[in-house]
Parts: sequence; C-alpha cells; structure tokens
Amino acid sequence: MRPFTSTISLEEARRRLDAAVRPIARTERLAISQGAGRVIAADVISAIDVPAFARAAMDGYAVVSADTTSATTETPARLLLVDRIYTGQLSTVTVVPGTCAEIATGAPLPAGADAVVMVEDTASDGEQILVRAAATSGRNIGRRGADIMTGDLVVRAGELLTPSRIGALAAIGQPNVTVYAKPRVAILSTGNEVVDPGESLENGQIYDVNRFTLSAIVDAHGGAPRSHRAAQDTLESLTGALDECLESDLIVFSGGSSVGTRDLVVDLVAARGEMIFHGIAVKPGKPTAFALMKTSRTSETIPFLGMPGNPTSCLSNAYILLIPFLRGVARLPPHMPRIVRAPLGRRIASSAGRHQFYTVRLENGAAFPAFKGSGDITSLSHADGYIEIPPDQDVVEEGTLVTVTLF
Amino acid sequence: MRPFTSTISLEEARRRLDAAVRPIARTERLAISQGAGRVIAADVISAIDVPAFARAAMDGYAVVSADTTSATTETPARLLLVDRIYTGQLSTVTVVPGTCAEIATGAPLPAGADAVVMVEDTASDGEQILVRAAATSGRNIGRRGADIMTGDLVVRAGELLTPSRIGALAAIGQPNVTVYAKPRVAILSTGNEVVDPGESLENGQIYDVNRFTLSAIVDAHGGAPRSHRAAQDTLESLTGALDECLESDLIVFSGGSSVGTRDLVVDLVAARGEMIFHGIAVKPGKPTAFALMKTSRTSETIPFLGMPGNPTSCLSNAYILLIPFLRGVARLPPHMPRIVRAPLGRRIASSAGRHQFYTVRLENGAAFPAFKGSGDITSLSHADGYIEIPPDQDVVEEGTLVTVTLF
Repeated sequence: MRPFTSTISLEEARRRLDAAVRPIARTERLAISQGAGRVIAADVISAIDVPAFARAAMDGYAVVSADTTSATTETPARLLLVDRIYTGQLSTVTVVPGTCAEIATGAPLPAGADAVVMVEDTASDGEQILVRAAATSGRNIGRRGADIMTGDLVVRAGELLTPSRIGALAAIGQPNVTVYAKPRVAILSTGNEVVDPGESLENGQIYDVNRFTLSAIVDAHGGAPRSHRAAQDTLESLTGALDECLESDLIVFSGGSSVGTRDLVVDLVAARGEMIFHGIAVKPGKPTAFALMKTSRTSETIPFLGMPGNPTSCLSNAYILLIPFLRGVARLPPHMPRIVRAPLGRRIASSAGRHQFYTVRLENGAAFPAFKGSGDITSLSHADGYIEIPPDQDVVEEGTLVTVTLF
Repeated sequence: MRPFTSTISLEEARRRLDAAVRPIARTERLAISQGAGRVIAADVISAIDVPAFARAAMDGYAVVSADTTSATTETPARLLLVDRIYTGQLSTVTVVPGTCAEIATGAPLPAGADAVVMVEDTASDGEQILVRAAATSGRNIGRRGADIMTGDLVVRAGELLTPSRIGALAAIGQPNVTVYAKPRVAILSTGNEVVDPGESLENGQIYDVNRFTLSAIVDAHGGAPRSHRAAQDTLESLTGALDECLESDLIVFSGGSSVGTRDLVVDLVAARGEMIFHGIAVKPGKPTAFALMKTSRTSETIPFLGMPGNPTSCLSNAYILLIPFLRGVARLPPHMPRIVRAPLGRRIASSAGRHQFYTVRLENGAAFPAFKGSGDITSLSHADGYIEIPPDQDVVEEGTLVTVTLF
C-alpha cells in the first residue's frame, strides 16, 4: 500500500480539468419532441415565412379601411357582409368598398381588405354590419412573415433547446433537429466487497452505492451513463473492465475503497496515458485521480476520472469536479446551483491545509452540520446542501453567516 | 362570436388554480436507477446496519490499541504481522497482543483488534511492523451501523429522489422504490388551420406549435404528456377528442386561435362541469379558461385548462399558470426560476388594467424588449426571460431597474 505523497489544491485540480475539456463533436438528429434540454449543433434558417399569409390578429370583420374613416358609435359605417372566413380556409371573395367579411383570428385576410375591425367595435343588423370605430390600414392584421421571415436564423448552434425554441422549429415546419450527442460516460464500478442492491449480503460485503449516485448525476447533467463492473480487484479483471470502456467519451472509475485497488487502476491508467493529477487537498475527496488515456482507436485520448470509493467522497467530488467537466464536454452552460446564506447552527472544526466541504441541513433558518463520516451516504441524503471552508481556516464559529450551496 | 365580457385578475386566477390542486395519489414502483427526480411515496426504513460490520476507515494495520500506548517515532511498537485483510473477506485470525494484521480501508476488522493505525504512521521490517504513533481504542474504525442503523428512516415520503437519496436506498440494498406516478397530462390540440411539422403547408395553414411547447413544459415539470388531436373545429370532433382525454389527470386544451373554436370547447366543458374562470386580465394570455370537468368514471373531476391558441400567449401561460398547477398535482416543490436585476434598455408602454408579461433579451447588462407580437414564437425563442408590469402601470422608462425572470 502506498500512502499519498503529494496533493494539489482544489483550484489547481479544477484548472487542469477545465483545460482538458474537449467539447463533444459528435451530433445526432432527433425529433424535436425528443430534443428538450439538448444542445443545438447547427444553425437553423427558416425556409418559409411565418405566418405564410397575412391574417387577422383579432376576431372581427375584414374591411377596406377607407370605408371606416369617419365611423363612430353615433355614425357607424354600414357594410354588406359578403363572406365568413374561418381559420384554415381561403376566401374566394374579394372585399370591395362597401362590403366586409367576418373573419376569425388567424384566418387569412381576403383579397381587397386592408384592416380588421374587432368584433367589440361592431354590431350586426341582418346582412349589414355596423362598424363603430375607424380602422387604419393594417389595423389588426398580422402581415406575412411578421414572426419569422424566409432566411431568418431561428435557432443558433450552441443554444439550448428550450420549449420556446422547440416551438420556433415547429413553427417553421421542422420535425427534426441536429443536436450534439450526449457524452457516453462509462461508470466503472469495482470492489471485491461490493454487491448489487437486491442481492443478499454476505459477511464483509456492502451494497454498491457509487454506480447509482454517479449514474444519476451523469444523467442529470447531459451525459449518457453506462455501467461497467470489474468482477475482482485484480489486474486482469480491471484491465478487462477498462478495455470495455474505451468506446466512451469519459471514464469515471469508482469502487473498492482500498488504496490497493486504486493503485492497480491508477498504475494501469498511468501506463496507458498521462496522469494529470492524483490527490487533491480537499476533504472529503482527497484520493482523486485524473488522467488522459490513450486508445488504439484514434489519436484522441479519453479522460479518466478516478473517484474515491466511499460514497460521500465520491458524490461530493461528482458535484465539485465531475459535473463541471461533464457539462463542458456536453457543451452545456455551467451548472448554477442555488445559494442561500444562513447562520451556522453549531461550531465546526475543519482540517487545516485542505479545502473542506461540509454538508449541512437547514433548520429554523440556520445551517447545521449534517456530516457523520466521510463514508456515510446519510451525510448527503439528509443534507440540504454544503458549505466550503478554505484551507487556511480551521474553525467556523456558531452564528457565523455561511454560504450554503443547495443540492 | 362572443367577445369577452369579464376577466379576473391574475392573482385571483392563481388563487383559484391553487385551490383546485389535488396532489396525485397514484403510486408506482420503479428501479432506483429510474427514479431520479421523482417524489418518494412511502417512508423507507432500513432493515440492515450500514455497514453491517465494523471496518477499517483507513489503510493500515489492525492492532490491539493497548500495544501502541507508548509508541512514538523514536520508540515504535513492534508487532508481528499475522494476516493481510482485503475488502470483501473475513479474517480467520484473531489479533492478539503483540500482533497486527494489514488491513485495507473498508475491510472487516478482525477479531481481537480495536484500532487501526494508518499506514503513514508505520514502517515494515520484514515480518515485523513498526508502529510509530499511539492509537486509542476505536481509532480509524467505522463501527457497525455507523452510517445507517436497522430501523432508521432512510428516505421520507414526499421527499425528492436526489442522487444522494438513490445512494442511501442502494446502501440499504433496496433495488426499487415507490414513487408517486407522474400526472398524465392530455394535450388537446385543435384548429382547422393547424398541420404537423414535416407536412406541406397549404394556403391558410400554419404549423402546430403549442403541442410541442406544452409537451416540453409538461415533461420538464413532472408530468407525462400525451397528445390528442381534434380533426376539425366542430362540436362532434371536439367532443370525441375530449372523450379521449378523460383518463388523464389534467387536460390542457390549446389549438385554433379563433374565439369560435374556443367557444365550442368552453361550452362543451361548461356543460360537463364547473367553469372556475374564463378570461384573465393579463397580457398576453387573456383568453384562458379553467374548469373542473365531471367524468362518468368516478366522482372525481378532471381539471381542464383552456389555453390561448397563439404560441406566445400559450407558452407564457404555461409558465405562469400551468407549471405551478402541474407541480402541485405532481407533488413537486414550487419551481424557482432564476431572477436577475437589470436596467431596462428601452422604454416600454404597457396596457393599463392588465398584468403584463414582457419578454426581454439581456444584452450588455441591460434588458431589451424581445416582444414582437402576441402570436410570435420568436418573442420567446429569442428572449432570455420576462419582466412583469403590474396593471396600474402603463409605462416603464428606459434605465428603470427591472426584475427579469429567466427561462
């Protein structure tokens, strides 16, 4: 077993991770109904005008505006009703001076008409319509292309596909959209002592936690998680499992909590590529490794993130290191967790020299430490968020106003 | 065609919607890996201790603590190495005074040992291990049940299934979890003039937008969207389409932008239940209806939300009315959109007497109106968020600090 001999600062680890981000280049074509939250990979230009015709913006009567110039409640203009135009149908009638056509919002404006009088400003008198207010030319008309013109840029490469952008693509008749592929994230779970939930637990065994927490995190931040499992903490088994991950865009190792296992994997990865760091001055989460692995496939490297085996350290590092890196690869904007300020409910003693993350529960407006032990998943599942204590601080007194990053 | 005769305030509409929320009672059982973001429907109590055994919290040597009482760098304790214990395996050896066992983090503590000396505080000398620091009883040991005890409440009904709670369920060996079902939301799209993206556009026709924007919104806020389509704006066609929606937990109508169509649907719904409101003093989004429809199925009613047909009004109302209502039914916590403050980049004139939502684009730190026309989807797809102008205000001057709710 090898102890850690050196660590780098959290800042430096973040900087090296940032520098290693290679935004994904692979794209795929999806139905717009399947594309919410994805990143648009190509500008989309409209091939049509939206609307493709001038239309009524109100329910009312299509008129020749000159007929209504002097119309008032007392001296209404009287126009002969010559047609009723519903949405989705063209009128075959031309509206000539002295006539009008009833028209529904969204229906195409008939030939001859240049304004719509809203129904509230009219009255009906048999075949005649009384118009009680003047309408200037263009009044209550949506002109052809008012929303989108042929040649307009409707969505831009790099933008997120929001509900309104899905709507804009639908409006120009595009049933499909090209988006960036989700990075494939191989989650390599290992550990002799680890068994799957649902199986029975023998002496000395524990249930796998990290595969589930990491998959949920990866899925929520734009990645496509794929679980792999090494049967044993042996060089042979780990090599085989790593080989299965080489079609991925990112490998996240987690598993056996022992340094022995980690050493095997780290040696394996180091032999196949460049170790960018191993060991961060952060608590929890110190035994974290990052490497760029070579593949036979191409000249590209595959980023490899080796996470601590214990559940809280692993999940904490997933929040602070994996999410920013993965979102960078997925071309998603940075995650903006919600922040609240609260007084600390109980004094905390921290480890000097390491950047420390402390889980807290919010109760009665104060932040209480939720931390039990670095291997304890309940430190996180019962917490509302975490606070950070910088390396140069070893005590935070009760009542100190702290910044809580909410999960 | 009937004009609107009365409207209620946005506040009142929200109050009536809130009062009509019936949180969903249906539950379903899912694999924990499929449950992220869902609402837990039943408390889960642990049937096991986690860990199920005392274990090493560090890589090092399991010792009898009394052997190390006077150990220092200068006067190390010398202990005979009697076993190597890896994770997942029990030691058959008892550690008696004068002996020790090498042990990996997470491995079960052997009989006889009551402390672990971390590897950094030791040196190896053939078969003897030199311990250079004292370890008190219990040092570097995770006791059985330290994380979770048999009988502990691990997750609580009503809580969101976060990655860490998925991890807690995995830790106690639960492969499945009971969650509340997603409310089924029937999206009833209609309009003679509306055709599907991908089809060719005839004269007077437009592409369906609302079905896509509403589905994306519903999906993002805990609902299961299901599209229905009325072939024509006729009583017969609309009745048939409504009948298809009666197995849903919520019906959201949207479609033909004409008052005529809306009248048909509103009459149909009113005849089958209780109209809670029809018409809100808000811009855009005035022609919005809400009703509780009776069904033959049970004594329950189905909430019916009738949305304006034009895309921006429909989507705007989805943000301000549908999302809070749907999240209430789905038992999700209120949506907390991100808020920024920015000076207004250009003067806005508003409609007095109506609560107005104005889409804005953020550029160079200022908020510029993105609004084009109430039917224009690009008012939304090119916007970053919206500002609200209360009914009693008709102008907001350039430079005024406004609150922008980001999409």
